[in-house]
Amino acid sequence: MANKPSIPKGTRDFLPEQSLKRQFIFDTAKGVFQLYGYQPIETPAMENLDTLTGKYGEEGDKLIYKILNNGDFLEKANQDDLDAKASNKVATQISDRALRYDLTVPFARFVVQNQNELSFPFKRYQIQPVWRADRPQRGRYREFYQCDVDVIGSDSLLNEAELLCIVSDVFDALGLGDIQIRLNNRKILSGIAHATGLGDHFGEMTIAIDKSDKIGVDGVREEMIKRGLPAAGVKKALDHISRKADADTLLRMLSGSLTGELEGQKGIDEMRKTLKALPPHVRKKVSIDLTLARGLNYYTGAIIEVGHSKFPSSICGGGRYDDLTGIFGLKNMSGVGVSFGADRIYDLMEELSLFPTTLKAASDIIFINFGETESLECMQLAMELRAEGYSAEVYPDAAKMQKQMKYADARGFRFVILIGSEELKEERANVKDMSTGDQSSVLLSDLNKFIFDKLGSDD
Amino acid sequence: MANKPSIPKGTRDFLPEQSLKRQFIFDTAKGVFQLYGYQPIETPAMENLDTLTGKYGEEGDKLIYKILNNGDFLEKANQDDLDAKASNKVATQISDRALRYDLTVPFARFVVQNQNELSFPFKRYQIQPVWRADRPQRGRYREFYQCDVDVIGSDSLLNEAELLCIVSDVFDALGLGDIQIRLNNRKILSGIAHATGLGDHFGEMTIAIDKSDKIGVDGVREEMIKRGLPAAGVKKALDHISRKADADTLLRMLSGSLTGELEGQKGIDEMRKTLKALPPHVRKKVSIDLTLARGLNYYTGAIIEVGHSKFPSSICGGGRYDDLTGIFGLKNMSGVGVSFGADRIYDLMEELSLFPTTLKAASDIIFINFGETESLECMQLAMELRAEGYSAEVYPDAAKMQKQMKYADARGFRFVILIGSEELKEERANVKDMSTGDQSSVLLSDLNKFIFDKLGSDD
Repeated sequence: MANKPSIPKGTRDFLPEQSLKRQFIFDTAKGVFQLYGYQPIETPAMENLDTLTGKYGEEGDKLIYKILNNGDFLEKANQDDLDAKASNKVATQISDRALRYDLTVPFARFVVQNQNELSFPFKRYQIQPVWRADRPQRGRYREFYQCDVDVIGSDSLLNEAELLCIVSDVFDALGLGDIQIRLNNRKILSGIAHATGLGDHFGEMTIAIDKSDKIGVDGVREEMIKRGLPAAGVKKALDHISRKADADTLLRMLSGSLTGELEGQKGIDEMRKTLKALPPHVRKKVSIDLTLARGLNYYTGAIIEVGHSKFPSSICGGGRYDDLTGIFGLKNMSGVGVSFGADRIYDLMEELSLFPTTLKAASDIIFINFGETESLECMQLAMELRAEGYSAEVYPDAAKMQKQMKYADARGFRFVILIGSEELKEERANVKDMSTGDQSSVLLSDLNKFIFDKLGSDD
Repeated sequence: MANKPSIPKGTRDFLPEQSLKRQFIFDTAKGVFQLYGYQPIETPAMENLDTLTGKYGEEGDKLIYKILNNGDFLEKANQDDLDAKASNKVATQISDRALRYDLTVPFARFVVQNQNELSFPFKRYQIQPVWRADRPQRGRYREFYQCDVDVIGSDSLLNEAELLCIVSDVFDALGLGDIQIRLNNRKILSGIAHATGLGDHFGEMTIAIDKSDKIGVDGVREEMIKRGLPAAGVKKALDHISRKADADTLLRMLSGSLTGELEGQKGIDEMRKTLKALPPHVRKKVSIDLTLARGLNYYTGAIIEVGHSKFPSSICGGGRYDDLTGIFGLKNMSGVGVSFGADRIYDLMEELSLFPTTLKAASDIIFINFGETESLECMQLAMELRAEGYSAEVYPDAAKMQKQMKYADARGFRFVILIGSEELKEERANVKDMSTGDQSSVLLSDLNKFIFDKLGSDD
């Protein structure tokens, strides 16, 4: 292979610094999830194809990566479909498996399949990659991580409140405290649809409203009219959802307009209870946004979307679903969850220089290699430093000093330790502190103590 | 979908306890890798198909999972191959991408592709899943994790020594200190082949020797004869590799028998230097085993295999490769690495009950839910406990006490806290310590301190 190697479009390699930063985001989130009693699970990257198809709409189905069956897969293909070049039909005949498209459907499958092993309400988090054959563009990849946290098996609104607290805590811990949480409820939207004569068009209405971020209320109106929704109803519905006021006022006004709409009233009540259960420092980040719809059909109650002052579009979102496991045969399992957009959070933290600087330096100490005898002594000293919890390397080759120092610079070690034959004879080391440029001659027997005094024990 | 959902054969769901235990293994290994200055990288699950094919032998190629191209993939298929049902040929016409088969080839591709961003010698670790369309059986999966640690860009034998130290440290940290590290060198095997007239059959000789664990030396002899190797040479070669003695004696004897075999002598010298660079506590775990061959063709120097007294077959292995990146056009990049068998290590730790018991309990504290007013107070108290670093949950529903206590039992909380309307009035909580059965009535304002006294601050 003479060509320069490459990776598939829309996929990425992660270099050490990027990997460490990504790990920092995930570890921070995990730390919060665990404080709230959420537990990790993992599901396989490969699911049976029929577990995934039909769950993401027609467009979604096209974006699922199918895995070619091994062996003589053509034997199982229908000859007529092959002759007709019906790729869509043949695909399902020659692929039994597919790559996970999100974490939600596999989670529903997991809950049903493992229900006897789980304690309900089951609170889980899951941080794994997903794959979508989408057109790659800036910030959109074909392989990317999702970071989902859900509780299933309880319809208490304390769960909604708890998830909002988790969202607030995670972003605080990442240094992204300046978030705005937008909250809506699908039942309220349904109440508005029914009260304005759009009850039969609820799905189309939410799909249109979902675009209001991008096309504005006027654009939404056009789209609804174009989809054939009655103009009078569209006007009334948009009057409702465009209302801006503080939460109490808004909910009171809505309650007045939706008299007799049982579902709408239930949504208002859910929203009130959720807001009431929030501690003040979270409550102040939450506002009601009736234009928030989230296109996903499985949402049935609260819907949540999180923006940041420096990145107003979504960096986290989710909602309540009453029947996600129903598609796999398990009824009455209400759940609610949110998903953190790891890639967007990464980009935002990078832009705002929020990653700890310590993530860049992989090691504390490097020993320069002056030859076999010296380097064996350095191996021993490095071992003793590691036993104290410091990361330490010995440059493996007795290369030219310039080459070794170039490596030391590139990696960003705090200390460069030089022990040549003279130093070895005197049982001393030259220790260069790269943060100050200071050079010290230290007895080998004092080396651990010297480093400890500079770095402390918890480094 | 009425059928009970399932996952593809050879794949697994991981429940919370399993996930936590797996995470414990990976975190422990990472901690050691980082002390030695190794850095994490990640590569995509999907590689271009031509990056992978031809790297694992004909049998390996058949086990690569190919990803079906999206869209009208049949358009690109050759009609003659389709008519002939030549699945193998058609596969490469309708799949541009494939799932990673191991971490080694993607690592070589990564080094070549990102060479300008890396500092050499480049020390990396990588913990990611791989996929193989192998026949599933006990302990063999189609989706499993590899945990690889390699240094590339240095041919110093200090790297071999360092990796053996890492192996020793990782297993010590996991409580699996009772390991045996078997060491051999492909150059010595090559020297033996040349000295015994089997020089032209080196590949076949190593493939046969590689099976000696399973079929014994007699089996290896039979296999070599069957493969047409000259009987006299086979006898001499097997006399060499069956020798047992301490390392110094063995290397001296070998050196005497392989006079004039430059490569063999080089291998002996490499082995001596590697052993010399080991600290005594690692050295005593290492023995020379000339029957160790490791079938993988890319090994050119040291080969390493690690067994445990309770699991003698391999739980970790690796070796030196001089030209892995050559296949991607970058010459002279010698590397050496080992791979930890995460699944086998997991099974072994489970069998020996080596996982910390604290991994089982996800949370420290649960508040029983007595209704809306009480639970809102509990949400507040739980928040304060979390701020101190304790994990705390409020049962989300005011369900029957029996149901809530059953959940508390199943999850294994340390403390169950009961605050009913009476307690709330008196501003007290009933705290039940599940580890002792003791019940205490604690003032709400003293709750944090009470938990602190029991659990300490670092829990």
